[in-house]
Amino acid sequence: MSSSSKPNLPVTNAVNGPPNADLVRERGAASFPVRDLTYLVYGGQERTEHLERIANMVASDPVFRKTDRFFLSRTEQYRRSLEKVRHYKELIAKHNLHSELDQQDLRQAIDEDLPIGLHVGMFIPTIVGQGTDEQQKKWLPLARAYKIIGTYAQTELGHGSFIRGLETVATYDKSTQEFVLNSPTLTATKWWPGALGKTSTHCVVFARLVISDRECGVHPFMVQLRSLENHEPLKGITVGDIGPKFAYETMDNGFLRFDHVRIPRDHMLMRFAQVAADGTYSTPPHSKVSYATMVFMRAYIIGTASSTLAKAVTIAVRYSCVRKQFPLRSGEPEQQILNYQNQQAALFPLLATAYAFHFTGNYIRQMYSDFVRGMRAQDFSVLPEMHATSAGLKSLTTWIASAGIETCRASCGGHGYSKLSGLPSLYANYIPACTYEGDNTVMCFQLARYLLKLYGKAQAKPGLRLPGNVSYLEKSTLLDERCDASTEELWLDPARQLHAYRNRALRLVANCANRLVAEMQKGKDEVLAVEAIKSDMVKVAKAHSYYVVLNNFVNAIEQLRASGTSTPILRVLKTLCDLFALHFIQADLGDFLEYGYLSSLHTEPLHAQIRRLLEAIRPDAVALVDAFNFTDHALGSALGVHNGRVYETLFEWAQQEPLNKTQVAPGYHEYIKPFLLAKM
Amino acid sequence: MSSSSKPNLPVTNAVNGPPNADLVRERGAASFPVRDLTYLVYGGQERTEHLERIANMVASDPVFRKTDRFFLSRTEQYRRSLEKVRHYKELIAKHNLHSELDQQDLRQAIDEDLPIGLHVGMFIPTIVGQGTDEQQKKWLPLARAYKIIGTYAQTELGHGSFIRGLETVATYDKSTQEFVLNSPTLTATKWWPGALGKTSTHCVVFARLVISDRECGVHPFMVQLRSLENHEPLKGITVGDIGPKFAYETMDNGFLRFDHVRIPRDHMLMRFAQVAADGTYSTPPHSKVSYATMVFMRAYIIGTASSTLAKAVTIAVRYSCVRKQFPLRSGEPEQQILNYQNQQAALFPLLATAYAFHFTGNYIRQMYSDFVRGMRAQDFSVLPEMHATSAGLKSLTTWIASAGIETCRASCGGHGYSKLSGLPSLYANYIPACTYEGDNTVMCFQLARYLLKLYGKAQAKPGLRLPGNVSYLEKSTLLDERCDASTEELWLDPARQLHAYRNRALRLVANCANRLVAEMQKGKDEVLAVEAIKSDMVKVAKAHSYYVVLNNFVNAIEQLRASGTSTPILRVLKTLCDLFALHFIQADLGDFLEYGYLSSLHTEPLHAQIRRLLEAIRPDAVALVDAFNFTDHALGSALGVHNGRVYETLFEWAQQEPLNKTQVAPGYHEYIKPFLLAKM
Repeated sequence: MSSSSKPNLPVTNAVNGPPNADLVRERGAASFPVRDLTYLVYGGQERTEHLERIANMVASDPVFRKTDRFFLSRTEQYRRSLEKVRHYKELIAKHNLHSELDQQDLRQAIDEDLPIGLHVGMFIPTIVGQGTDEQQKKWLPLARAYKIIGTYAQTELGHGSFIRGLETVATYDKSTQEFVLNSPTLTATKWWPGALGKTSTHCVVFARLVISDRECGVHPFMVQLRSLENHEPLKGITVGDIGPKFAYETMDNGFLRFDHVRIPRDHMLMRFAQVAADGTYSTPPHSKVSYATMVFMRAYIIGTASSTLAKAVTIAVRYSCVRKQFPLRSGEPEQQILNYQNQQAALFPLLATAYAFHFTGNYIRQMYSDFVRGMRAQDFSVLPEMHATSAGLKSLTTWIASAGIETCRASCGGHGYSKLSGLPSLYANYIPACTYEGDNTVMCFQLARYLLKLYGKAQAKPGLRLPGNVSYLEKSTLLDERCDASTEELWLDPARQLHAYRNRALRLVANCANRLVAEMQKGKDEVLAVEAIKSDMVKVAKAHSYYVVLNNFVNAIEQLRASGTSTPILRVLKTLCDLFALHFIQADLGDFLEYGYLSSLHTEPLHAQIRRLLEAIRPDAVALVDAFNFTDHALGSALGVHNGRVYETLFEWAQQEPLNKTQVAPGYHEYIKPFLLAKM
Repeated sequence: MSSSSKPNLPVTNAVNGPPNADLVRERGAASFPVRDLTYLVYGGQERTEHLERIANMVASDPVFRKTDRFFLSRTEQYRRSLEKVRHYKELIAKHNLHSELDQQDLRQAIDEDLPIGLHVGMFIPTIVGQGTDEQQKKWLPLARAYKIIGTYAQTELGHGSFIRGLETVATYDKSTQEFVLNSPTLTATKWWPGALGKTSTHCVVFARLVISDRECGVHPFMVQLRSLENHEPLKGITVGDIGPKFAYETMDNGFLRFDHVRIPRDHMLMRFAQVAADGTYSTPPHSKVSYATMVFMRAYIIGTASSTLAKAVTIAVRYSCVRKQFPLRSGEPEQQILNYQNQQAALFPLLATAYAFHFTGNYIRQMYSDFVRGMRAQDFSVLPEMHATSAGLKSLTTWIASAGIETCRASCGGHGYSKLSGLPSLYANYIPACTYEGDNTVMCFQLARYLLKLYGKAQAKPGLRLPGNVSYLEKSTLLDERCDASTEELWLDPARQLHAYRNRALRLVANCANRLVAEMQKGKDEVLAVEAIKSDMVKVAKAHSYYVVLNNFVNAIEQLRASGTSTPILRVLKTLCDLFALHFIQADLGDFLEYGYLSSLHTEPLHAQIRRLLEAIRPDAVALVDAFNFTDHALGSALGVHNGRVYETLFEWAQQEPLNKTQVAPGYHEYIKPFLLAKM
């Protein structure tokens, strides 16, 4: 009988041995130069190599190792993330990474929800955007040097998207020139802000301003929460962590209550609204700048939808080449899972989507840059379209990426359920993107209202010219047109693909508008009529957003062609674009069939062409995920390792499980031993 | 400055105060007697009260508390689950719960993946099913008294659904009359079996039997893994935990390797195949009994799909009545979320589905009982249909329940992401149901093959009578029929609803069969032709399964009507059945439109009727989830508490977060303090 305290590991356990032969073969068979596609994705060779230097620096640094997270308690994970924060600051100093872009690249390479994310992403930008020049001069140097750590507290226990419903109150006391912050109810408790629970010393708090019993709306206030000496909460402040979440273990999302906490008058961020010493309140001029910040954040979110989905697909495609199951014929070796049609049908449209979203992210960033340039000349004309479009794209991309990660996980069979696959964490960490920076459903309503308004205008005033992406709303004759893609070949025509998406979107907008009228004719006022079409409004917003994504993918390929991109790269991108276009018609086929735009004359070649595209992508699948160029550190997955030594990695990582520290697990002596045979 | 070590909690924090007024109002307005529906769901008043006694006993027992799991490390959770195992055994003795049903009820009430789940659910049944009488006499008393704890090890690191691909080998040594178990490769490592890692002393191991270099197929062997004295692994055995998973923290899913481990000849379970002392191998007679066990497990899984989805819907519906957001009109109070059409459209179809699956579970259990009765008279005629049907239903119900839980979570906004909502754990613990007991996709292939075979037979031999659920495959004339539901009212006709589902299923089977022929005409052999239609086969299996679910729901209501169930209950069940039927037509609308079965003449009234049904269910929504009769313990959710004191509960539970034990979190001194302002 063995009494060794360590398991007897198999000698084959070598994660760094020769690469998996199937992956080597797959890589050798790619139809295009992978490296060129990588350059294309990351904006050129120089930028790619810069990102690689940072990624490799992080990947080789033991402080930034990620796989230990699987085995740590929540508290240990939080502590480890603070260690990473300190090291991040050290590296910035050591390597002179003083530009915002360098720091962002570094954070992205660290690839964890660090408790300074809100400090950098919300606290500092809010001071910049809403603080007066003096306030910026006072707080920005402190914040940028991390001499204070801040966060952003808007959401409350009982209040989310409806900002005017916030209950936290800031009452102006003229006698002392102070605001008195208070949380009058339980539901007024600030709840969810990242890094609020334990890390932050300061916070921008959104509260209802009250001056002499007069309600002046919700405004931002700078509040110190914790002592800079000993980190204890200040008097009147109750602050803590809101407890475990689906993921985000490293982040101390927090709660915060005020018991008549006094702050000086100049702690209200007064770039727009102001309160004078005597309590005079001046209303803010309408600020369009805050919309720009929103669009900037959404562009970032759309880019992340692409990269996160790309990670999931990378893991699933590589593992599906390594994993084998069922021989095609009795006696033959088992087949690579990726050879199965249903596996291809699950993964390749997501691969295509990751590329599609990449180009959508580029498009929105470009739109944003153009807007910022125009804004300097007081040109706000593109704002409504940009605001509405980015809202819809944020929703569509985050929904599809969320569901897509789960599809990838499920496609990995049993091992996808192991955290060591990386996929459960990828999913659980990603899904809040559907809620933050604007709940997806609320975002869809915004876009749908915009589309309905323009459609109404165009109907009322024929000949009106609408801006780029929405110009199809002008032409209600489009509704009478039918698809003419009656062969597989015709379905590869981008003009026909776009025609289908435009037609679907217009049809849904028109139906929605008609239903709105019908509901009002039944006696509802407009408010109630809108309530009755809300489900349709979500469909409208998605349909328009699909069109925008496809349009950008098609345009991006045209531009690449014009700028001399090589044929093999253009060919594979065109195949992905085709699959994106056709897959999402197939997925919502009812929309296209319902009013006769398509019939089985068109859908049969559509289905056949999709099968053909899956076959076309198969030989390039590994190369297409390799082109995303993720390090093993970035993937954090035993199934997705670049060398394909999947089972060796899974086995080795599992040995780190704390339950494996001893042969006999905790609890045996108290709970199991008493009833086992030996005690009879 | 405060230096208190405990947060200053608001006085309003009282989880046991008066119930939420909105929930009280909702409950008062139900159109039907909730208690009667509860009796109907759980099989009568007596059975309901019995289950309630057990549920309440568990809910009030501190050992069985569930909410501490949110705050424990994996090791602590495993330890706690062993504590529950011991207590479970104590309660069985104390309350004389000696029947299998009583013990099952108790385990279900404890509602956790205990490390004896496999012992009870797989180890003992395998001894019963595959052991000889002597083997049963030897091991069953020990197992039933927990003097040994066993599990079931089939899956390997590199091998899942394809059993013949298993690599673990059992070589017969005639000289000693022993089998020598060995794991020749890394991928041969047993991987995933529950309770294998740390808990089990014994295991039924599936291994390739080799006698004198002759391969004799995969067989089950009884192997002792750990000493009954000190729980150390026996010589030659490497065993441990496979590490963290998406959930299942309480379960020590394990790995297991053999290094030439010898077991006596009579440790092969020999009810069917046998190895004589001299090494003579006798092949097993075909056993249909194992199919019956499979169907039994699937019936259980389908029932669990219903109850798990019901829990998620209970949480989401209650919270959506408590939670308010956005006033309908400026100045009005904010609205209950459940009043929003899109929220109803998300949740009510799932509510209807939970009821639908309940009746499907009943149906499969009944089918199973009939089969077992027939089997005693050597009547195996229903086996093929039962086997295929249950495979499809297992897949459909687990897929829909999985996605449905996530829909419920997302519908709870930000708080749905908190583990305290109960929904992340519910989801992550549930989803393996899509993989275990037959991977859903593989199950769909099985059903599709069965349907294609019968369809082929019916085509070849007109007039052939096919069994109940598949009899529609006889009538290819059904393909020429069209929907005539051109009004909202007509869509409520169950015959028309069923006609639509049958027509869709037949259409997909026929298309699939035609494509198979077409692929073969292109020169593929049958094996490759089947590969080319695999995506369509999954659609076929789902379409048939939807039909079976609806058919059973319709039949169940008819039977209830015939047996005198009260009108209010029948009315609300009919509304749920209608919503189930119409929602899943709307969800797959393309299938019904593609070949002209429906057109917009029918879909417009369809959409309108769905909106009407959502409105009809709204006033009964809380009563319909209350009828599932879950205790707060069973739900384990701050958002789903019966008294609706959601925010109080969320706040109180969050205080237990280990990070809140001290005001200043671990890591502050080492990692944050050094760079904060005070140190300048």
